Amino acid sequence: MMLKEETLKSLLRDVPDFPKPGILFKDITPLLAEPAARRQVVNEIANYFRDKQIDAVAAVEARGFIFGMLIAEALNVAFVPVRKAGKLPYHKLREEYDLEYGRAAIEMHVDALKPGSRVLIHDDLLATGGTAGAAGNLIQKLGGVVAGYSFIINLSFLPGEKY
Amino acid sequence: MMLKEETLKSLLRDVPDFPKPGILFKDITPLLAEPAARRQVVNEIANYFRDKQIDAVAAVEARGFIFGMLIAEALNVAFVPVRKAGKLPYHKLREEYDLEYGRAAIEMHVDALKPGSRVLIHDDLLATGGTAGAAGNLIQKLGGVVAGYSFIINLSFLPGEKY
Repeated sequence: MMLKEETLKSLLRDVPDFPKPGILFKDITPLLAEPAARRQVVNEIANYFRDKQIDAVAAVEARGFIFGMLIAEALNVAFVPVRKAGKLPYHKLREEYDLEYGRAAIEMHVDALKPGSRVLIHDDLLATGGTAGAAGNLIQKLGGVVAGYSFIINLSFLPGEKY
Repeated sequence: MMLKEETLKSLLRDVPDFPKPGILFKDITPLLAEPAARRQVVNEIANYFRDKQIDAVAAVEARGFIFGMLIAEALNVAFVPVRKAGKLPYHKLREEYDLEYGRAAIEMHVDALKPGSRVLIHDDLLATGGTAGAAGNLIQKLGGVVAGYSFIINLSFLPGEKY
């Protein structure tokens, strides 16, 4: 049985003033607690990408790991963690990007991708697109191809969709 | 086809001197890149807990999210993130615990568990057991029951198994 879109949306909780005053945070934890709804979200994403020859899902730490792993499993492909600086143990490449204030960096292992791998980038939230864009740059530097992006939530009032 | 235990072990990479000199880090990223091996690990854990009336998998940020979500999916139960201090957006409980040097804290949402929920705690690595023990305390304070623990790697030279 398919759940309606408003049922799925009701499982995303708005938390005002987190992580700081004026920000309305989209909390996915109610969705994570409902296996049928969770699976429907995963299947919708996986079905969209099923004929796009995806070889790997690269997911951004930490919340991106949650649905990213399920999407990799549904597509039966490699899962590649994209982590914050200093977290991955092996030889790695780093990409810096701008935040609203200051800069951040993400890293991937140098052997994370086979040459020519078609990679789906996943994170739970598309805001400004800075992190996803940096992940795309890393994937290209590692010899992969960015085959698409998936997000659970798209903040349409922010400019991420231009990426 | 079942993969042999040594095949699975060959997908755990030893990285010396990470995160600091003298530590031999167990890197699970090669295992994450192999869907069949990954699934076998998940199925072995899920099969062990399948008759233990698990209602939720509580997984510890960030690496614990990866297999924790797959185990929750295999058992068709809620996934509950256990996060480092300051990361969860909603009302939450905090538990502090000792590290080798200093202290750390983890948090769970106050509404993360239904009363009496039987919870499987998951992390990728059992070392001293400090984090897993703290997660168990939080689950009990939230009205849940700790029904078991699962780890991908058990460092048997450290005392975590006594928990």
